[in-house]
Amino acid sequence: MSAVILVHPQMGENIGAAARAMLNFGLTDLRLVAPRDGWPSAQAEAMSSGALEKMPPVQVFDTFPEAIADLHYVLATTARPRDMVKPVLTPSEAAIEGQKRAQGGQRTGFAFGAERSGLFNEDIAACHSIITVPTNPDFSSLNLGQSVLLVAYEWFKAGLALSDDGAFPAPAAKNDNFPAEQGEIEGFLSRLEDELDAMRFFRAPELKPITARNIRNIFTRADITDQELRTLHGIVSALKGNKL
Amino acid sequence: MSAVILVHPQMGENIGAAARAMLNFGLTDLRLVAPRDGWPSAQAEAMSSGALEKMPPVQVFDTFPEAIADLHYVLATTARPRDMVKPVLTPSEAAIEGQKRAQGGQRTGFAFGAERSGLFNEDIAACHSIITVPTNPDFSSLNLGQSVLLVAYEWFKAGLALSDDGAFPAPAAKNDNFPAEQGEIEGFLSRLEDELDAMRFFRAPELKPITARNIRNIFTRADITDQELRTLHGIVSALKGNKL
Repeated sequence: MSAVILVHPQMGENIGAAARAMLNFGLTDLRLVAPRDGWPSAQAEAMSSGALEKMPPVQVFDTFPEAIADLHYVLATTARPRDMVKPVLTPSEAAIEGQKRAQGGQRTGFAFGAERSGLFNEDIAACHSIITVPTNPDFSSLNLGQSVLLVAYEWFKAGLALSDDGAFPAPAAKNDNFPAEQGEIEGFLSRLEDELDAMRFFRAPELKPITARNIRNIFTRADITDQELRTLHGIVSALKGNKL
Repeated sequence: MSAVILVHPQMGENIGAAARAMLNFGLTDLRLVAPRDGWPSAQAEAMSSGALEKMPPVQVFDTFPEAIADLHYVLATTARPRDMVKPVLTPSEAAIEGQKRAQGGQRTGFAFGAERSGLFNEDIAACHSIITVPTNPDFSSLNLGQSVLLVAYEWFKAGLALSDDGAFPAPAAKNDNFPAEQGEIEGFLSRLEDELDAMRFFRAPELKPITARNIRNIFTRADITDQELRTLHGIVSALKGNKL
């Protein structure tokens, strides 16, 4: 199972189309971040063709970090490769990666941005990798419902491949190699940023957001485990103790 | 390149969504069979997000056989496997098959039925194979635009795989192994049916449509070449001469 997170979706119709596409391919964990027109939505209900009634209640969050706090691995769907060092996967590759992790007991999520603007760079920075759908370069714009459909379809296909031939590894036990939840990573990054602030690390205030994002990218890309996160906290504590 | 044939589409919006999905993935040959609300359609234009303006003019036909007369290989998209002996392919398998044939110079087509009713059995009988999209069995209904999107997406992916690693065979020259066009097959089947009628082959008139369809299925499944079609005509002539 994987969550689908729609960040600042505008049209209820698109949320409904996304829900329908999700359920077509067996996904039922839909999360919304600050939908423009509120929630619930009659337009979404109508467009979902009954899917919303059959799925567990949609969860609504104020911020993206809250929406992904309990997930271990999050993929950002964006048509535009940003100036950020992240693995870029096709929907098929992303689905296989997600299914492998889900089989290993991890909670995964696919994040989609608003209809026109897409995901904010800050949201992308909090994700582990990027999904880009290969399209005709002369006419590449997919709408939100179409993007969710293609990702959900590949997710389902990857799951069928798994059950058919057991090509994926057996589920791993939760051990020291289990990835940290996003909320724990977020907590560490907040702490690190505070500590760095206190040490006047960010000399030029106008550059702080970009520097902070670059730091965030390093740690999300690193796919940090529980154990490693404890180690990182220890490092920060040690360094701070040494400096003071 | 492959054609997309929408048979008796009802809503202009769905035709527009199909056109958009096609152009997203590099398909531009859209054919309509007897669209319910006529053609052109303002709803289709609006929903296509500009795709229809960028594509060659849509061709409109009265019947399905006319729409596929110049094609060599046609795949029917249907959610319901019918009681018909045809190869059933996933969208991915269908796309690879179609791309291989297109690389060999064949003209291929993907046929989609009306929104609720799908393709008629008579239309499916004229196709070489069936595409079925794997979906959640508890919520399997895809709309027309979604179905076209998934097939076009797989087509594009298969084309990328081809250009990336040349895994497909080199284009074949048009020779005796080149498949006959659908119009030629249709001509043979009409002739055969007439000849059989004349010989009182169809004893029970009420069973004639089913028997005729079963015959059609044999010859479409057989993927008949130009040379073979000439042979078949010769056989019918010979038999007829012998009988008379």
